[in-house]
Amino acid sequence: MARVAFQLMIRPGCIEAYDESHRHVWPEMLQALKSAGISNYSIFRRDRLLVLVLEVDNFERAWGQLGKNPVNLRWQTEMAPLFEPLTGLEAGERFPMMREVFFLE
Amino acid sequence: MARVAFQLMIRPGCIEAYDESHRHVWPEMLQALKSAGISNYSIFRRDRLLVLVLEVDNFERAWGQLGKNPVNLRWQTEMAPLFEPLTGLEAGERFPMMREVFFLE
Repeated sequence: MARVAFQLMIRPGCIEAYDESHRHVWPEMLQALKSAGISNYSIFRRDRLLVLVLEVDNFERAWGQLGKNPVNLRWQTEMAPLFEPLTGLEAGERFPMMREVFFLE
Repeated sequence: MARVAFQLMIRPGCIEAYDESHRHVWPEMLQALKSAGISNYSIFRRDRLLVLVLEVDNFERAWGQLGKNPVNLRWQTEMAPLFEPLTGLEAGERFPMMREVFFLE
């Protein structure tokens, strides 16, 4: 099971809307994440920077599956206005991924 | 068990030294972390930004204990030149902490 982390940036003025949405994630959205094989999924925030950390067998396959899930598409449509555009992506990156440089079980 | 995350910034030019050190963390340093009650400790890096994520019963107590451990003090002395000075700390913060705004088991 891979531990995966990536970054997102919240738009100025949207922090409270983001936090509030994530206090009330739809149960069917939680189920969609679970069905895609995602677990131990934490989202950490400081100021406008988000770091999303999760465990998944295959991140690309899971995100591909979520990309076809109507519940997730509806969720992403609601969340999209809260995010800054992605910048600095490397070739083939879906998000600004973080590399795990240390792990202690 | 709390999930805790905080940020550090590597100095320009020190990324490779940081990564290399963390491929070879001293066994006695790993033991010091374990003895302080730390587990599932990942360090994620993108460019110069580090996000350190761990599980611990009481972060302040664990860091207080590490602060008296000679092995950890020796490790921190070796690592210190690789980090930018901490900025933007809030009152009472030891590090720039990140708040967990979402968790899915």
